Amino acid sequence: MMTPTAPPSAEPAALREDPLRFGVGARVTVAVMSDRYAEVILGALGDLDASGLVVETGDVSTYVGGPEDALLRWVTDLAAAVAETGEHASVSVHLSRGCPGEARCSAPGGAGPRPVAPPAGRRTGRFAAAEWALYPLADIAVGDHAPDHMRDIEAAIDLARGNGTFQGSSHFVTRLTGDLGDVLATAFAGWTMVGRTVQHVTSHLTVSVNSPSHARVDA
Amino acid sequence: MMTPTAPPSAEPAALREDPLRFGVGARVTVAVMSDRYAEVILGALGDLDASGLVVETGDVSTYVGGPEDALLRWVTDLAAAVAETGEHASVSVHLSRGCPGEARCSAPGGAGPRPVAPPAGRRTGRFAAAEWALYPLADIAVGDHAPDHMRDIEAAIDLARGNGTFQGSSHFVTRLTGDLGDVLATAFAGWTMVGRTVQHVTSHLTVSVNSPSHARVDA
Repeated sequence: MMTPTAPPSAEPAALREDPLRFGVGARVTVAVMSDRYAEVILGALGDLDASGLVVETGDVSTYVGGPEDALLRWVTDLAAAVAETGEHASVSVHLSRGCPGEARCSAPGGAGPRPVAPPAGRRTGRFAAAEWALYPLADIAVGDHAPDHMRDIEAAIDLARGNGTFQGSSHFVTRLTGDLGDVLATAFAGWTMVGRTVQHVTSHLTVSVNSPSHARVDA
Repeated sequence: MMTPTAPPSAEPAALREDPLRFGVGARVTVAVMSDRYAEVILGALGDLDASGLVVETGDVSTYVGGPEDALLRWVTDLAAAVAETGEHASVSVHLSRGCPGEARCSAPGGAGPRPVAPPAGRRTGRFAAAEWALYPLADIAVGDHAPDHMRDIEAAIDLARGNGTFQGSSHFVTRLTGDLGDVLATAFAGWTMVGRTVQHVTSHLTVSVNSPSHARVDA
């Protein structure tokens, strides 16, 4: 789980600069609602460019670690490949940065935030509806980084309004709709924007594609 | 999303005592990896006892609000009904309490924690593997409630070790395996145990049932 208890590191800058040591990664679960689910998932995974990333496939999710822009590319390519099959699918994306530990943060109590530009997404031509939660954790001031996660969460919501993905709020989540690539890029942007001032930030996004509930939409 | 900014309420006890006003609820996504997915989900939902709960079905997830014990009963009955069909499925459970708001906490800045006994689960006879994240948020001292979420997270992990569901830690999550009912009850226990001292606590659990990756297990 997620609480930084380790003593400050002797070399915070080195920890921040290495995505894997800073714990930048995602766990992704693709559930395809079809008898062909194994073929669809294996086909999508097999075609992905995993350069710059560590990928470990498990029975509940696939872990992917590496820099934010490569993660967004990988997740977008995976979700788009699934969407292009036309099968109804649910894609759960759990993002984390700033806490490489497991039950405990083995990590950088004093590493501080890792500022990166929100990675650019790509349009996929596929419609998606999603529910999004964004969690600033370990909200401690480090050096001259005064955490201000409300400002950054508001900036993330403003971004979602600006790019047209913001559809409203519901219990516990913000609802995003639009092009699958824009929806994913919005979640990554919120995660990295809050991460400008908060070391440990996680985000959970549940994405639905090819739902029979969705009217045909030109995304 | 999730940051309490509202001023302290004039009646914190009343907010804590009403599960809906305190924002006790779950969002559940059931993804059945079969051409029969709609039939399986509708069949499972149709048979559930929703007494004491508010249920709103959406295209990405179903929201369920109400007291913790009724929520666990509902989620367990739903997941067990899906598991009993023999179809491979992924069940995502997003739990939240202490922040009824949406993009912002409209809620009880000063409501304080809501202490409840961890609800009792029931055995289902079905094996599950799950990945679990538990987030103490809004970790502020209210009155004589000194937050100590590390103590409570450790208590939750001890509980998982004690009931046999703890299987280890991995990137960003704790892995739970065993009887589906025990796995769900463990997640609810961690969520309510941390909630003894922290007002706003969320938890995300991704559960896999009937996976071809799982050897046959007597759960």
